[in-house]
Amino acid sequence: MEKSIENELRKDSFLERWVIIARKRHARPQDFSRNKKISPQTSPKACFFCPGNENLTPPEITRLPKASKWRVRAFPNKFAAVSKDSKSAYGAHEVIVETPKHGERLSQISSSHMLEVLEVFSARINSLARDKRMKYVLLFKNEGKEAGASLEHTHTQLISLACIPSAVLEEISASSAYKARRKKCPFCELSNEKNERLILENKHASVLAPYASRFPFEMWVLPKKHTACLTKLKKEEKRAFAEALSRALKKLDKLLANPSYNLVFHISPLRSNSLHFHVEICPRLSVWAGFEFGSGIIINTMPPEEAAKALRTQFE
Amino acid sequence: MEKSIENELRKDSFLERWVIIARKRHARPQDFSRNKKISPQTSPKACFFCPGNENLTPPEITRLPKASKWRVRAFPNKFAAVSKDSKSAYGAHEVIVETPKHGERLSQISSSHMLEVLEVFSARINSLARDKRMKYVLLFKNEGKEAGASLEHTHTQLISLACIPSAVLEEISASSAYKARRKKCPFCELSNEKNERLILENKHASVLAPYASRFPFEMWVLPKKHTACLTKLKKEEKRAFAEALSRALKKLDKLLANPSYNLVFHISPLRSNSLHFHVEICPRLSVWAGFEFGSGIIINTMPPEEAAKALRTQFE
Repeated sequence: MEKSIENELRKDSFLERWVIIARKRHARPQDFSRNKKISPQTSPKACFFCPGNENLTPPEITRLPKASKWRVRAFPNKFAAVSKDSKSAYGAHEVIVETPKHGERLSQISSSHMLEVLEVFSARINSLARDKRMKYVLLFKNEGKEAGASLEHTHTQLISLACIPSAVLEEISASSAYKARRKKCPFCELSNEKNERLILENKHASVLAPYASRFPFEMWVLPKKHTACLTKLKKEEKRAFAEALSRALKKLDKLLANPSYNLVFHISPLRSNSLHFHVEICPRLSVWAGFEFGSGIIINTMPPEEAAKALRTQFE
Repeated sequence: MEKSIENELRKDSFLERWVIIARKRHARPQDFSRNKKISPQTSPKACFFCPGNENLTPPEITRLPKASKWRVRAFPNKFAAVSKDSKSAYGAHEVIVETPKHGERLSQISSSHMLEVLEVFSARINSLARDKRMKYVLLFKNEGKEAGASLEHTHTQLISLACIPSAVLEEISASSAYKARRKKCPFCELSNEKNERLILENKHASVLAPYASRFPFEMWVLPKKHTACLTKLKKEEKRAFAEALSRALKKLDKLLANPSYNLVFHISPLRSNSLHFHVEICPRLSVWAGFEFGSGIIINTMPPEEAAKALRTQFE
């Protein structure tokens, strides 16, 4: 994405549908035809995210370890979808590079390296939460062209928002309604269920295929204890979560030969405890089409019970 | 898609989220890796939808003209997402081939040919409406790989459902709320507005870029008069609608060099007048990614005012 100029948050005139109009600078209509999503920079020399090219990114926010040879690094997104200058699309847009190695996938880093990644994520959420205008922090990863990635070097994006986005509000409201009915958080139940959709678990975390999976091989990673946010996990729980997430990604990449996927962190709104924190892994092996847009019903050709079995038995 | 065996309509255990699990016969997990969406049949000889191969499709439902050399042809989908045998995913799934010419795009057929296409769509909706268990008929077209097409020869799909799908319910409820507030149907207002998002119009139909466009170059085609369904348009109105739709598609294909797109018919539920009929054209030039899934907010990098200007001035 090119540098945005005057981004605008628009609500449809009557539908509950929100759009950020993030105008590309200098983009002409013709630029949209057959546009390539991945910039072809196979050489680390030309990569903005590789060590040695730190001067090509906006000023660094943080790195781990603090010494010069970093393993995880965060900086503002040069082409922000939201910004602190924008009246309606107010927020911060950051990039976190999880590995200095060009071409390495998140599944390839060690569990302890993954723990460092989660530490950086936590630090960024805590830091952005200090701005009281910010209501939500969305962390997500687009891996591969079919998942919307625009750069080869793997990275996670963080967008903080002055509103609680609609998908999060719906999840919270459905979760509260369930709790009122059954006296239990649905994610607490899910994360402790032993059924055919369980893929793996450890002392503090579970990975499962959700009952109404929208994506073939969709996985949810949940802490077993009700926790509002990644930042609230105790050290031991965070280590277990990192291990579960690592194993889930290794299984996915081995079973499906490095598929494109989105990874979305579902945390509670800032200063709230309303949602059981979890991560959703959404492989992009099919395309949502006319039926999905017209009906809101998703067609998934891989039953989650079979997906779970294949992932469960997949050697990591 | 391969032949489905026991399709199942699942609702998430607490979210308002619906999924059809449409199991592929014999599909192994490995078949999902790097799967090709378009079967490479460049030769009309091998194409199920080309004239001469009529025996390769399930028994024909209808054709236009009725003589042997058809221009439009309808038959059941061999690989149905819903079926009359399925307990939960009950419905009919049909295919309508709009042109006998392999490789021809919908933008290339004449307005009068487009009118014939709309006549076949109408006839199929009317016929399926006779089954009182059917509550809704969804018509959609997936053109090109990025839009989810699985076959080269252009075609529209029709799925009738025993439920009113969630996206339609939301549209109806938002439309009713607007009407209660403003004493006017929002689509009636839209279709008669003369503003910078208007792309083209004739006596009975308008084509516009919606204010909160979700897709770059998104277009809506609306009859100017409040009409519940394609089937309720008078001959003159249907002709005007066909002309507007044809012109919109020609502009799109010329401006963006034949992009992938979805075309979705938004009709009222069967035996109801609750929704102002319209067609949504959704070009697939970008990919919804982690931000969209996590937030429910869509990032669109082409302001609809600019898209409308480019389409308005595009020679057809």
